[in-house]
Amino acid sequence: MIDIDFDKMGGLIPAIIQDNDTGEVLMLGFMNKEAWENTLATGKATFFSRTRNKLWIKGETSGNVQLVKEIRIDCDNDTVLLKIDQVGGAACHTGFKSCFYRIIESGELKTIGHPIFDPKEVYKK
Amino acid sequence: MIDIDFDKMGGLIPAIIQDNDTGEVLMLGFMNKEAWENTLATGKATFFSRTRNKLWIKGETSGNVQLVKEIRIDCDNDTVLLKIDQVGGAACHTGFKSCFYRIIESGELKTIGHPIFDPKEVYKK
Repeated sequence: MIDIDFDKMGGLIPAIIQDNDTGEVLMLGFMNKEAWENTLATGKATFFSRTRNKLWIKGETSGNVQLVKEIRIDCDNDTVLLKIDQVGGAACHTGFKSCFYRIIESGELKTIGHPIFDPKEVYKK
Repeated sequence: MIDIDFDKMGGLIPAIIQDNDTGEVLMLGFMNKEAWENTLATGKATFFSRTRNKLWIKGETSGNVQLVKEIRIDCDNDTVLLKIDQVGGAACHTGFKSCFYRIIESGELKTIGHPIFDPKEVYKK
């Protein structure tokens, strides 16, 4: 039995999403119990969207789902780490591979790399 | 100017800690504004401990500080990723290199690897 501590953060746990091949950290999302169980049941990363206040199967709009290859749990049972294969190559809604596409250099933000897709083409709305 | 969104989670942001050499995800902590600014000012990862309700310079007890080599910020400005050098080799208070030392296999938790230090020796209390 895997006992995840959802109480510590009011029903949510942070889920770190890491590229299974390269180890690059792609994003961080939050899961409630339903999102966690859906992830286990389907093998597709599922989150709870805090802004939309509903279950969010990553890629349900864009088709860029995250296929879960490995799941790890931290020492406190309150954070999970998912190693995934990113369909379409980009995890970020901006079109970048990783949501962490900006680095701090000399106190300023600098963008690294280029978008893989054009959000206007993918999210036609 | 780097504008971090501390409001989304009541004054805290998640900070993913990644080994600068290997890319292994070592832990996740939370930072408030003070912890974030202390991290930038000192180059040592500083968190806000939710259980102790106070600023927590990682390694202040064990000596195993985290020397920050790179900082990235996500697309929503509400999560940061720190690539660090882990003094002492282990980030987890249990003595394991990573807090994510357990993997889910066939629905069960399985421990990977061995502790690097003995917590009883390091935290003499």
